[in-house]
Amino acid sequence: MDGVLANTYALFADWHERETGIRKDISETIGMPEREAFPNTRKYVFTPSFFRQLAPIEHGIETVKALNERYEVFIVSAATEFPQSVGEKLAWLAEYMPFIGWEQVVLCGSKKIIKADIMIDDHFKNLDHFDGKTILFDQPHNHLKPAGRHYRVKNWQEISDLLLP
Amino acid sequence: MDGVLANTYALFADWHERETGIRKDISETIGMPEREAFPNTRKYVFTPSFFRQLAPIEHGIETVKALNERYEVFIVSAATEFPQSVGEKLAWLAEYMPFIGWEQVVLCGSKKIIKADIMIDDHFKNLDHFDGKTILFDQPHNHLKPAGRHYRVKNWQEISDLLLP
Repeated sequence: MDGVLANTYALFADWHERETGIRKDISETIGMPEREAFPNTRKYVFTPSFFRQLAPIEHGIETVKALNERYEVFIVSAATEFPQSVGEKLAWLAEYMPFIGWEQVVLCGSKKIIKADIMIDDHFKNLDHFDGKTILFDQPHNHLKPAGRHYRVKNWQEISDLLLP
Repeated sequence: MDGVLANTYALFADWHERETGIRKDISETIGMPEREAFPNTRKYVFTPSFFRQLAPIEHGIETVKALNERYEVFIVSAATEFPQSVGEKLAWLAEYMPFIGWEQVVLCGSKKIIKADIMIDDHFKNLDHFDGKTILFDQPHNHLKPAGRHYRVKNWQEISDLLLP
């Protein structure tokens, strides 16, 4: 969800500006870990309402809706590190992706336990353990790292072109 | 968790008695689906506090603690059908199994997406899709069904004998 379906950078930038008065442009954060780009991210992600407030990433909802008609889709989100997030993430999905049933949702810690054919993720730590095809969703924190065996996409339009030709 | 680590039958019997005045002995429910044994289970599992109130099943906690020192353990619980349960299940684990880290917890809908070597579960619908070794945890609802390719255990002591010889 975060950094693939839900726009964490936009809310990090908003909350960072609220705290410091300084607006960081996302382009200034390219190549930095999130915590370096926005020093208080650890505080933000443990704050109630953070995950519920995230805006959807452009074209994510409509693309997952289309994928859901052709594939067996699961939304797998690293959530258990932030106990307050689990209910918020279900509420977020209920609002933005009502076409995703409860059977299709996984809130986890490590994604090592996930078995599927294709994984779309913005973190190498999740993709590297996965047995199937791996799609790296471009985000500032991974942008300067070589994609390796993973296929990098810049946005959901590219995923649509790839998986819904 | 439910029916393996957490004692759903005991709380179903308590809530059923509170509603009807009738105490059902678990032995009367052998071979029945849970909803037949306790007609209001669907109401109970959507009631806030139900999952938080469950008592641990005998020897479950100590056995998982010992397994956790020898195996890579994940607690995988069908939870997303009951959105109010997700926070309660994390709180339950934090209370009874503080040795289980957030990386080891999966709250899901379908367990078809789970990849591991051994699955312990009380439901055929979860075990039947699993690629590894499958251990059927005996519960009244599954007691009269042939275990098939799954290995039936009556309790956590048997799991300990099997996996921690």
